[in-house]
Amino acid sequence: MTIIERTTNGPLVVELHDGDRSMAGLLGGKGAGLAEMTRLGLPVPPGFIITTEACRAYLTTGGEPDGLWSRVEDELEALEERTGLRLGDPLRPLLLSVRSGARFSMPGMMETVLDIGMTDEVATAMVRRGEAHFTWDCYRRLAQMYGRTVLGVDGRLFDDELAAMRRSTGVETDAELDAYSLKLLTHSFRRIIREQTSEDVPQDGREQLHAAVLAVFSSWNGDRARLYRQHEGISDDLGTAVNIVQMVFGNRGEDSGSGVCFTRDPVSGAPGAFGDYLPNAQGEDVVSGVRSPLDLSELQRRDPELHRQLSEHLRTLETHYRDLCDVEFTVERGRLWILQTRLGKRSPAAAFRIAAALVDDGVIDLDEALTRVDGLQLQTLLHPTFTRDASAATLAHGLAASPGAATGQLVLDSATAVERAALGHRVVLARPETSPDDFGGLVAARAVITARGGLTSHAAVVARGLGRSCVTGVEGLVIDVEARTATFPGGRILAEGALLSVDGTTGDIFEGQREIEQSAVATAIQGDAPSDADPVVDAVLRLLAHADRRRHLKVMANAEIPEEARAARRFGAQGIGLCRTEHMLLGSRRELVERLVLDDDREGALAQIEELALRELSALLVEMEGLPVVVRLLDPPLHEFLPDLVELSVRAALEAERGTEDPDTTRRLAAVRRWHESNPMLGLRGVRLLTVLPQIIDAQVRALAEATVRLRAEGHTVAPELMVPLVADVAELVGARERIERVVAEVAQAHGTELHLPVGVMVELPRAALTAAALAGEADFFSFGTNDLTQTSWGMSRDDAEAGFLSAYRQAGVLTTNPFETIDEAGVGALVRMAADDGRRARPTLGLGACGEHAGDPRSTAFFEAVGVDYLSCSPPRIPVVRLQAGREAVLAEGRTTTADTR
Amino acid sequence: MTIIERTTNGPLVVELHDGDRSMAGLLGGKGAGLAEMTRLGLPVPPGFIITTEACRAYLTTGGEPDGLWSRVEDELEALEERTGLRLGDPLRPLLLSVRSGARFSMPGMMETVLDIGMTDEVATAMVRRGEAHFTWDCYRRLAQMYGRTVLGVDGRLFDDELAAMRRSTGVETDAELDAYSLKLLTHSFRRIIREQTSEDVPQDGREQLHAAVLAVFSSWNGDRARLYRQHEGISDDLGTAVNIVQMVFGNRGEDSGSGVCFTRDPVSGAPGAFGDYLPNAQGEDVVSGVRSPLDLSELQRRDPELHRQLSEHLRTLETHYRDLCDVEFTVERGRLWILQTRLGKRSPAAAFRIAAALVDDGVIDLDEALTRVDGLQLQTLLHPTFTRDASAATLAHGLAASPGAATGQLVLDSATAVERAALGHRVVLARPETSPDDFGGLVAARAVITARGGLTSHAAVVARGLGRSCVTGVEGLVIDVEARTATFPGGRILAEGALLSVDGTTGDIFEGQREIEQSAVATAIQGDAPSDADPVVDAVLRLLAHADRRRHLKVMANAEIPEEARAARRFGAQGIGLCRTEHMLLGSRRELVERLVLDDDREGALAQIEELALRELSALLVEMEGLPVVVRLLDPPLHEFLPDLVELSVRAALEAERGTEDPDTTRRLAAVRRWHESNPMLGLRGVRLLTVLPQIIDAQVRALAEATVRLRAEGHTVAPELMVPLVADVAELVGARERIERVVAEVAQAHGTELHLPVGVMVELPRAALTAAALAGEADFFSFGTNDLTQTSWGMSRDDAEAGFLSAYRQAGVLTTNPFETIDEAGVGALVRMAADDGRRARPTLGLGACGEHAGDPRSTAFFEAVGVDYLSCSPPRIPVVRLQAGREAVLAEGRTTTADTR
Repeated sequence: MTIIERTTNGPLVVELHDGDRSMAGLLGGKGAGLAEMTRLGLPVPPGFIITTEACRAYLTTGGEPDGLWSRVEDELEALEERTGLRLGDPLRPLLLSVRSGARFSMPGMMETVLDIGMTDEVATAMVRRGEAHFTWDCYRRLAQMYGRTVLGVDGRLFDDELAAMRRSTGVETDAELDAYSLKLLTHSFRRIIREQTSEDVPQDGREQLHAAVLAVFSSWNGDRARLYRQHEGISDDLGTAVNIVQMVFGNRGEDSGSGVCFTRDPVSGAPGAFGDYLPNAQGEDVVSGVRSPLDLSELQRRDPELHRQLSEHLRTLETHYRDLCDVEFTVERGRLWILQTRLGKRSPAAAFRIAAALVDDGVIDLDEALTRVDGLQLQTLLHPTFTRDASAATLAHGLAASPGAATGQLVLDSATAVERAALGHRVVLARPETSPDDFGGLVAARAVITARGGLTSHAAVVARGLGRSCVTGVEGLVIDVEARTATFPGGRILAEGALLSVDGTTGDIFEGQREIEQSAVATAIQGDAPSDADPVVDAVLRLLAHADRRRHLKVMANAEIPEEARAARRFGAQGIGLCRTEHMLLGSRRELVERLVLDDDREGALAQIEELALRELSALLVEMEGLPVVVRLLDPPLHEFLPDLVELSVRAALEAERGTEDPDTTRRLAAVRRWHESNPMLGLRGVRLLTVLPQIIDAQVRALAEATVRLRAEGHTVAPELMVPLVADVAELVGARERIERVVAEVAQAHGTELHLPVGVMVELPRAALTAAALAGEADFFSFGTNDLTQTSWGMSRDDAEAGFLSAYRQAGVLTTNPFETIDEAGVGALVRMAADDGRRARPTLGLGACGEHAGDPRSTAFFEAVGVDYLSCSPPRIPVVRLQAGREAVLAEGRTTTADTR
Repeated sequence: MTIIERTTNGPLVVELHDGDRSMAGLLGGKGAGLAEMTRLGLPVPPGFIITTEACRAYLTTGGEPDGLWSRVEDELEALEERTGLRLGDPLRPLLLSVRSGARFSMPGMMETVLDIGMTDEVATAMVRRGEAHFTWDCYRRLAQMYGRTVLGVDGRLFDDELAAMRRSTGVETDAELDAYSLKLLTHSFRRIIREQTSEDVPQDGREQLHAAVLAVFSSWNGDRARLYRQHEGISDDLGTAVNIVQMVFGNRGEDSGSGVCFTRDPVSGAPGAFGDYLPNAQGEDVVSGVRSPLDLSELQRRDPELHRQLSEHLRTLETHYRDLCDVEFTVERGRLWILQTRLGKRSPAAAFRIAAALVDDGVIDLDEALTRVDGLQLQTLLHPTFTRDASAATLAHGLAASPGAATGQLVLDSATAVERAALGHRVVLARPETSPDDFGGLVAARAVITARGGLTSHAAVVARGLGRSCVTGVEGLVIDVEARTATFPGGRILAEGALLSVDGTTGDIFEGQREIEQSAVATAIQGDAPSDADPVVDAVLRLLAHADRRRHLKVMANAEIPEEARAARRFGAQGIGLCRTEHMLLGSRRELVERLVLDDDREGALAQIEELALRELSALLVEMEGLPVVVRLLDPPLHEFLPDLVELSVRAALEAERGTEDPDTTRRLAAVRRWHESNPMLGLRGVRLLTVLPQIIDAQVRALAEATVRLRAEGHTVAPELMVPLVADVAELVGARERIERVVAEVAQAHGTELHLPVGVMVELPRAALTAAALAGEADFFSFGTNDLTQTSWGMSRDDAEAGFLSAYRQAGVLTTNPFETIDEAGVGALVRMAADDGRRARPTLGLGACGEHAGDPRSTAFFEAVGVDYLSCSPPRIPVVRLQAGREAVLAEGRTTTADTR
């Protein structure tokens, strides 16, 4: 989904009291949250917001919009008045936090500068007042962030310096560094800055502020930010707001600290406040995962009153936002400040459980609950898990940061992950911790494990968003990037490339490739086992049932054999929307088609084909008793059933060379040559086969008609339909239809009965879509074959493109989605819409369905709902996904409720 | 062109005085002409017309519309009153002619019954009055036509009987049969009818009339008629009128006769009445070509007064209709009757000459003259002719019935012609005479020769309409269908399959395959030789010049090398609309691309490619000095330049077998395998090549930029443009454009100058058309590549389809036109129209052109004119054809004049 939003000209600066949650477009998500919390009376540090409007103006024109800075000066003076502090005042210094904040959350993607206002003069006065450790910690942070963000110094230079200082002073964490070390670090950082840029941290707070604001503006167009937006489908045109608020300090001693928490457990969805707290630290320290945080219960033990206050604020927020909230807070010398709130990212399982719980709590209704989950989330829950009886060696255990079981090759950095994944390997990325720079690697990996970091670390948050398995905080895991090995807690050393199995639901990591089993959700959906009071399974079943009540789209299955049909019914299929008859001619049955082509007992081969079709279609119809079964006539080029031209040519040449010519080789080679096509995708297939081998089509039709008549005579209720593939012109459909009707009439007559089989047409060529009105005159229904329609609309063969230029395009960002996975609304979608409209206008009773890859893609369901097709047909395991998504889209389409506006 | 016309409900029967030429839809072309001539006071036999409305009602409902027969009875009574004769009255018998007549001329395709009203009683009375010969001739004709048309008896039974009678009585022609023979024949015919149908010719004139009218109605849906309409693009919904007029008799003795004539020579276009006259015969005898007719001068000699009257009527008609008229007349005992007029079919040369002559005569203006000719006609005039100095043996000489030189295999019947043409052979059809049953053979043949028949025989008329060479009246030519030989007048016997050369312009037939030379018209258009007062050449040049003044469409050439560019300029090209750079890499230059792909001195290969491009593009630009040259970047898949996979695989296998492995073979095979695609048409080509080998594109751009800068420095005025092929998404165009602009800027900078090359995009994929608004934002112009657009819209590869199912479709009538030849307006055309509209809306200055096969197809020009493209780009020889057609379409589009309404 690409989100494009343009606001009308708005104000350049907004004070926190003047904003609210509805203003996320202008204030960014973070700013709107701060404003809303200020209105709710929560303890938010005072401040103001430079709007996205100002950022857009800056990015568009390359210069500050007129009047921006005088507005900032006004707000700054008001802030100074309100706090009684002044920027740069040694006696009562005001320190500011300057943070980016876009409309849509882009965690860690953009820049922040803290402690703006710290100067030598302020520092000297603060030290004199006895806060040396705090002062130099603030100053070194300012130097570090200003140097990196504003002046573009490589951040690793600062990190190395910090690490050296920790080593030389013999401490584990930054928080343990003493005042003197921090002072030395401040000087070192400023020396690095001078060496790298010939500049220094300005000694004027306003100059610092001004530079920091422009740096935040510019960070919108940084590489990482752009890559993230591309992946998430966020428009490059939105810009970021800049939040400027008074600093509050979690690093002011042991009665201070910072935390990140959720109103409920974002992994399991269990009720109750949940999160991490890091004493004597600023917020960045928690999120970056550099130090392992404490559980909230630790805070409760240390300071029950504070924990009570926090819990009350969390309840206020969840009730107010009517959804899971993600909150950042800081405690400064015992005083609680709420620094940020937003709707909390959650695991797919949690999404279902929380949505259902909020219904039970009377906060939202089932319709709204349905909009809080989606098919992609359900899809991850349907993923198989490891079998319980597996005897794989457990390598380690960590935090279950993102659920799901996955196996793959161990890789030790993101570049390697991307590289091997591009070659088609499944990879498990292992890192000491991840940073925003690892985003590409997280996308490429099936699972991620990190040595450090909690459930809200970067790796955990991003992996949950992407639906990747993730285990964090694997204490003792050592990654040796030089030796390309990972040492696990027990001492086991694995080389890069070794096979791992990761269970993100339990936090377990196993050596080797574990066997996998069906998910509990999938099992429950199929009704095979009663729900054993698993709240997630319960939630899924409730929401799926509600989706079934609400959806307009029927969901059918693509299936050919009784086993698939049975699975489809269990998954809730309302029929078979696509039975590909060519599947009955694969494997050892290819030779039947070869005999037809070679005219080698053609009659016998035809009889066998018809008999096979009769038997298999009968079984399928019986399995789907009472439901429609749409049978597509033979579609692929016949030469797909013949031997390979190159292979056979080589064989013939070698036989000739050896003097062992086999007349059969010669004959088959001649046939293969005759049937060879330069572009088989655009060749003799589908309805066109009627021009060369109508007997095979007749045999299929006769088998289906015969099966129907016989089964009905036995009392079965069967509802077969026929579908003609690859029609470009209505005359082809007319010809096929006449032929079909003649054969059906012959069968009916032979049985002395009547038979009518509805005849539909695959709309899978642009010309079919463009001439849909004419086709509708001859078809009972359309089924959109969006795979072929994508191939022809784009002029690219899926086989050739996906292995080649299409992946190059995706890597280069030329295409943000794969049009074979998610419907291309602008191109292919326009044809589908046109054909549906024209077809329905020409024949109001026309049935409409879709049976390509996109019909099973939940990101494409909204499109089909909007077009108004009657059914989607997909592979059986995708059926519940599409059922859920279709319900959600129906609710959204009816505008009964909208997704929360601050997400 | 498919003509669909539906009239509103009109009258069922119309009397001749009540109609006029504007009523062709209701009265048919023939009926409207009769009515108009009646109004003009010309001697037309009295009568009335049953309208197409009545026919349509009959064909739709299967029964006569209410009130039809009572209206016929009324008109019949009025006719009896006016003539003083009565149907069936032995004393004063009224005999009627009942003829079909549709909106559009379908010569010989439908039915006629003459001499309605003849019965035994009438015959007996007439014989008693002394007209035995005439009486029995009428009666046998009635029996013959009634038997065949109304009762469905095989006409050959009657023909055989006639031939037997001629043999037994020793006469050459039917006209020589005596009264007794004719009486016997009448009895024989009635016996045949009774034997075949158990019916007889009714002895009630009104019953005869009724049955004949219904038979004419039904003949609309006869096989021949439907085939003809399909070929001519005439709607099946029009129906035919039935003309019922008093019989006049050309078979009433030597002072009677029938003729067919034109107001001018329909072959050469020379002024003056022109036609055939057959004494003592009815009209059918002239048209069927059974007897060779006399020239009109013969009539003048025999009866100067009659000839004067006829000439006066012809002048009246041509002035009135403002065009060549084709007239049928009959002389009954010295009295002249005009039986039919219509606009005359004419040879392409005559079309030009007559149009120009009518301008000179002040009858029409140049605009209207331009609408009287078209590009297809001009195309036939551009066809080469035989070289004059050829020494081929002349086999025979006949009437030059349809101009143009053609060579081909001799075939002796239409079925063989169709069969061999389908195999790709050029054939010359030789027949004693042709009948409407030969229509398929005439379509299939390059030329037609007949032993009998004049310039207005069936063969001549149809061949001229189809633009086939035709020589008729080759006296002494004997076709032996059993022996499969043709004996020519001098005694030379050729077997079927022998090569012949036919000059339809001179009437000469040669043995063997003669050498062919450029047409005089083509030579004159190219300005190589002064027009030597050839009136056809003059007419073409005048009308072409007028077309150039009137047309909106520019006409450009598809050309790559200077020789082609020179030819294009001579043919009037206004630039090069498509320079396919891949043509510079064919032949021995393939190895350059192979070196690139194999990475075999890649730099050296690139340098050579660039140098070649620089040299050849420079030459092209200089040749087209002052005119735009649109250069398309490399389009085909690179593996087209590589060796064939099958061939190379076989070679590698044989080398391995023989132990003579060549590492070069192995290496090349690996490369060919790597680059192999299952559907190259939909694969790695066009703009997509930028993802794998951008250097080759850079080299092309650099060469063009370098050529431009250097030539401009030398004072040349050159106007190159660049075109990006196979774009599906705007992001591809953006990437290509950025790359092009960077290379162009580098070249300009290196020369210290400025350079801007317009960049356009080929719109040749459905998705490009569907997202044209976005593309227009990044393109200076669109060029519609309708070849690829047809392939992808229809999902058919031209190579595979034209050899396969597409020709099967055309033979089966599933498709009436080849969408690769003539633009498919409903499908591909809809995309072109959409893209043009969306593109222009997004960028009003957007240039629009077309460069596919259709741009050079005159049947597609009206479409492009209507869409409003700026230019069409085609192969050089087609340029004048498109210039003319574009002028014609501009005039028609402006509605300044319309084509005559009785055509």
